[in-house]
Amino acid sequence: MNNLQVCLKRRPDGPATPADFCLQAAPMPVPADGEVLVQVLYLSLDPALRPRMEPVSAYGGSVDVGATIPSPAIGVVIASRSAQYGYGDHVFGFLGWQLYCALPAAGLRRIFPELAPLPKWMSVLGLSAFTAFIGMREFGRPAAGETVVVSAAAGATGAVAGQLARIAGARAVGIAGGPDKCRHVVEVLGFDACVDYRSADFAARLSAACPQGIDVDFENVGGAVLQSVVPRMNEHGRIILCGLVAEYGKPGQAGPDLWPAVYNSLSIHGFRGSRYFSRIPEFIPLALKWMAQGRLRHSEDIVDGIDNAPAAFCAMLEGRHLGKAMVRVGGPAA
Amino acid sequence: MNNLQVCLKRRPDGPATPADFCLQAAPMPVPADGEVLVQVLYLSLDPALRPRMEPVSAYGGSVDVGATIPSPAIGVVIASRSAQYGYGDHVFGFLGWQLYCALPAAGLRRIFPELAPLPKWMSVLGLSAFTAFIGMREFGRPAAGETVVVSAAAGATGAVAGQLARIAGARAVGIAGGPDKCRHVVEVLGFDACVDYRSADFAARLSAACPQGIDVDFENVGGAVLQSVVPRMNEHGRIILCGLVAEYGKPGQAGPDLWPAVYNSLSIHGFRGSRYFSRIPEFIPLALKWMAQGRLRHSEDIVDGIDNAPAAFCAMLEGRHLGKAMVRVGGPAA
Repeated sequence: MNNLQVCLKRRPDGPATPADFCLQAAPMPVPADGEVLVQVLYLSLDPALRPRMEPVSAYGGSVDVGATIPSPAIGVVIASRSAQYGYGDHVFGFLGWQLYCALPAAGLRRIFPELAPLPKWMSVLGLSAFTAFIGMREFGRPAAGETVVVSAAAGATGAVAGQLARIAGARAVGIAGGPDKCRHVVEVLGFDACVDYRSADFAARLSAACPQGIDVDFENVGGAVLQSVVPRMNEHGRIILCGLVAEYGKPGQAGPDLWPAVYNSLSIHGFRGSRYFSRIPEFIPLALKWMAQGRLRHSEDIVDGIDNAPAAFCAMLEGRHLGKAMVRVGGPAA
Repeated sequence: MNNLQVCLKRRPDGPATPADFCLQAAPMPVPADGEVLVQVLYLSLDPALRPRMEPVSAYGGSVDVGATIPSPAIGVVIASRSAQYGYGDHVFGFLGWQLYCALPAAGLRRIFPELAPLPKWMSVLGLSAFTAFIGMREFGRPAAGETVVVSAAAGATGAVAGQLARIAGARAVGIAGGPDKCRHVVEVLGFDACVDYRSADFAARLSAACPQGIDVDFENVGGAVLQSVVPRMNEHGRIILCGLVAEYGKPGQAGPDLWPAVYNSLSIHGFRGSRYFSRIPEFIPLALKWMAQGRLRHSEDIVDGIDNAPAAFCAMLEGRHLGKAMVRVGGPAA
């Protein structure tokens, strides 16, 4: 039995393409003492991988050419040399884009398929959702009645950010690409409104959707979207910089005019969810509660087969997905 | 006896020029009940006036064409219909660019020439200095050993911001225009270093002056200066947006690339000193103490004659000044 890995073949020149990746066979990994052997079931497709494909990346470190793509994933323990996990336990960890992985038990977190189906542990209970939770909890802090704008609102993080705003009693206004996503954001995710950034009169529509101005912006996109948001912020507004997917692969782009930040006393907070992983145990029970109450929903965009991971990743960067993008690798429990 | 006022003749087209102002005679104001008549002694030249000369300004409100230029100033009470002030009391308030002003006593703050010469009440004890104090106290919070960069370091606010960083035990690196200002910032104000933004290798010099990176940026300039600072910020760095003088008169300019704010968890805080005026009583005694200890110095750039205020203001916007720019209007106590 062999392992199969997706690796970085070359650094993308501009937008990432499937040809930037390669598929390679590798020996079956063998767990050392304290380690477990995990069969990967679902692997995550995250926009944050794109900046890590650059030769230098301060964002989680650059991926070496030839290396297996690092990635959060869900798997099942099929052999254990650790007292912490036994055969059949489901785990979440940085398993990478591969079929099998041996790694220290201490780097894994147990997940519970009896509480929620496995894909939910990647979407609404996963790191994208946790990142939304931290951004809103630490920096956005929406108050009841405030207006919260969320870009990439149909995406894995944005979908959760807006629903957390609603849970806080705020008005949630999404920004998404195309009428289908906008409909999903309002009808399925329960946002109060959603504006299509591709529409010719986007800025006017954004104003109309935010008649009281914007108090919190949960920013996943940057670029022209953020430029339209900043001048519409209210005094003491908060901009949460979670990601800037419009700028990935285009380094050194200009940002928004910051003059409104001066006259409106705005605060802008960049952050990385990974710096807050110790707070995941605070998030999971809350998310399970909100899911049970029907206040936290999520869609999963699942592609089958590890060999389809590169194409699905590139499609996601172009916004051709809905909800949390992931790949079902296969295996007995999938 | 007549009043004389500087008013806004027309809105500047690009850089402000003296021809955008006019001098007009006006009747001597008469104080109503609860008001005092103040003779203006020193009036302040503030960069923040420039955005207020636009037709629409969210920054303190647009100045109407024909209106007297609003401005902080120092004056002496020459007639009083308020129990709060008597003849000869010195006051600080928004007196405007004029010789005389009648206004409610409640809008004034008493100052004490026996504690410091009058120009010091406009410079190191004035609103520019107070603004530096609030920015550092509320948002910058430099720790001992951290590196604090201050743009427009030879200016009224920057000079104080850097010295407050030093008082906090941090390393203060100024950015200023030209070798004379840079020398002043180091030799007189006591910054650890100062970099000339006009030098061809500015970015490299900034790196050399900040070998440990930048923890706090006190930003008065924006534009290319801020673009050089942002990628040099350390993780959890704080950028204090006090002013963006490079962008005044050029609305809608692009800001810095914000990607470093994401990967380095930067926070960016715009603020307006005017929102914190209730804390001036906290600042004045501290500033007097630091002045007595020789830890807080300041230069004043004083021009004589109210008719020279427009030209001095325009020169200041171009950086042709050192320290706090003000106009000595004249009068018995000047």
